[in-house]
Amino acid sequence: MQIEEIIANIPPLDEAAMQSARARQDRLTKPRGSLGRLEELSIQLAGMRADPLPAVERKAVIVMAADHGVAREGVSAYPAEVTAQMVLNFLRGGAAINVLARQAGARVTVVDIGVAVEFEPTPGLFRRKVMCGTRNQAEGPAMTRAEAEQAIQVGLDVLSEEAAHGLDIVATGDMGIGNTTPSSAIVAAMTGLPVAQVVGRGTGIDDQGLERKIKVIEKSLAVNRPDRNDPMDVLHKVGGLEIAGLTGVMLGAASQRIPVVVDGFISTAAALIAVALAPRAREYLISAHQSVEIGHQVMLKHLNLVPLLDLNLRLGEGTGAALAFSLIEASTRLLREMATFDEAGVSDKE
Amino acid sequence: MQIEEIIANIPPLDEAAMQSARARQDRLTKPRGSLGRLEELSIQLAGMRADPLPAVERKAVIVMAADHGVAREGVSAYPAEVTAQMVLNFLRGGAAINVLARQAGARVTVVDIGVAVEFEPTPGLFRRKVMCGTRNQAEGPAMTRAEAEQAIQVGLDVLSEEAAHGLDIVATGDMGIGNTTPSSAIVAAMTGLPVAQVVGRGTGIDDQGLERKIKVIEKSLAVNRPDRNDPMDVLHKVGGLEIAGLTGVMLGAASQRIPVVVDGFISTAAALIAVALAPRAREYLISAHQSVEIGHQVMLKHLNLVPLLDLNLRLGEGTGAALAFSLIEASTRLLREMATFDEAGVSDKE
Repeated sequence: MQIEEIIANIPPLDEAAMQSARARQDRLTKPRGSLGRLEELSIQLAGMRADPLPAVERKAVIVMAADHGVAREGVSAYPAEVTAQMVLNFLRGGAAINVLARQAGARVTVVDIGVAVEFEPTPGLFRRKVMCGTRNQAEGPAMTRAEAEQAIQVGLDVLSEEAAHGLDIVATGDMGIGNTTPSSAIVAAMTGLPVAQVVGRGTGIDDQGLERKIKVIEKSLAVNRPDRNDPMDVLHKVGGLEIAGLTGVMLGAASQRIPVVVDGFISTAAALIAVALAPRAREYLISAHQSVEIGHQVMLKHLNLVPLLDLNLRLGEGTGAALAFSLIEASTRLLREMATFDEAGVSDKE
Repeated sequence: MQIEEIIANIPPLDEAAMQSARARQDRLTKPRGSLGRLEELSIQLAGMRADPLPAVERKAVIVMAADHGVAREGVSAYPAEVTAQMVLNFLRGGAAINVLARQAGARVTVVDIGVAVEFEPTPGLFRRKVMCGTRNQAEGPAMTRAEAEQAIQVGLDVLSEEAAHGLDIVATGDMGIGNTTPSSAIVAAMTGLPVAQVVGRGTGIDDQGLERKIKVIEKSLAVNRPDRNDPMDVLHKVGGLEIAGLTGVMLGAASQRIPVVVDGFISTAAALIAVALAPRAREYLISAHQSVEIGHQVMLKHLNLVPLLDLNLRLGEGTGAALAFSLIEASTRLLREMATFDEAGVSDKE
């Protein structure tokens, strides 16, 4: 399906399922509301899934990997070759996201949507390269509009294939040396805030590097003049291929009533674009965690999302989202498995 | 073993194990420090366990249940009979703590340390009643000093029995209608803060109930004059049997290098007493979550502990601690299972 069709297909949350879940929460053997955010989450999930007793058993983390022309400006603490090296690490199961996904009982799907090197066919790897990394956004658009649309389509397609294998919930992950730079550019473009207020240290640049990064993004915005009222304009000019791919994953998931656990800074940049394209998609997003990146708070406020965790993470890959899986699963298990006051013979509030 | 002997036996964290864990964290395929609190946690666990690659596989939640004479003052939204009813709910597996412990792969151990009714022998229930609930602390000491010591000894004994079955980590849980009142009294007594600053709504009393609760605690402190320099004096006069039992669990665990996941308000009140008795015990405590109870922040600040989660929980039973298990386990799995830069052939920071 095409992007416009997918967007038109995103359903509202199912009110009847939410009411039923809310009513059950009030009969379970605990003071009403005492499970706090887990109660709210279970009700929201009921609405997303159109199921009064939702389950989140079949889980996947979709990790989109791509390179960035802007990395040539020295905006990252790591060399660009690390993107491809980490893809191989994902495929061998040695990265943080592999460990956390194993613990959560989630599969990891790795997508080469724009890494600068070619990979051999490997189980677990989707080879859907749109191009060998973006162009340098400090000198012009990172992608053409058509390339950005193609990257979104990759996200839609990967989500569809995953859904066909059975999928109750999906987490978004990213890998791309330099990708906090396009993400910062997106939040600056979409909110109009000064670049210095939304740029952080990424994987760990020093003071001088941070100053350079701010200047690079300011230049990119000046050169490209992205139009915040046209999210595709922002995405193709100052975004990234993995960011566009994750936007597609989010839109595709929302259209199929599949909850999306949004990881940190890069994933939330993709969410900014997804929600600008399709405001209703917001209802299907669960913010996993508060990243160390200062621009992340700005994004979450803009989206009106409250993260579940705050553990000073700044890794990406979907690690925060994989950690949040257990809380989300807990919310649904509590709703399904707890005894009611009647069943347990427990006296209710006086 | 006796309390004094246990306290003398609490070892310091193992520095060599912590150094080894820290060095390994710096070789894993991620930017250094990018896993934030999970890195710190894995290093702290290495120190607790004296093991550079700690595992937290064998888990238990110890739920101490008891009644409170002060409940007769109308300080809770629920009738006192709910304590015993919930014990039966725990034993049948229908309570929130059962659901969350199942998900975490933890066993639930329920201890009747002072419920007002007698229970039949039941698998999973330790029958270690010290007395049928405390006396009304608004009229005099809740327990004698000897009764409080006996309750701590129950905690030590239960922990020893659990450790004998294999135990890598333990979570504390509580059940006792009215028990936010003694917990608030403990924090007021130990910190010297005004009662109104440390009292919350517990399971959900209204404004009038809150006012009454504050007056009851003020009366209890005036009648009993607990001495904050003598934690046993505070515990027996204004504490509770389950609180004393959990203090014993914490001291026993620390003496055996077993990390303790401290649940919310009631468990943290027990931690205040445990750390006042044995300052070194603090190193073995992991705060699971920030409770809704306003006095909880005061306690955590006093103990210099930072909670892992903040989900607006106010249920007790060990529910917050059981949720934290997955984060704690994640921290150790990441340390053990991630590939190093060398193993994965990934380039390190430039």
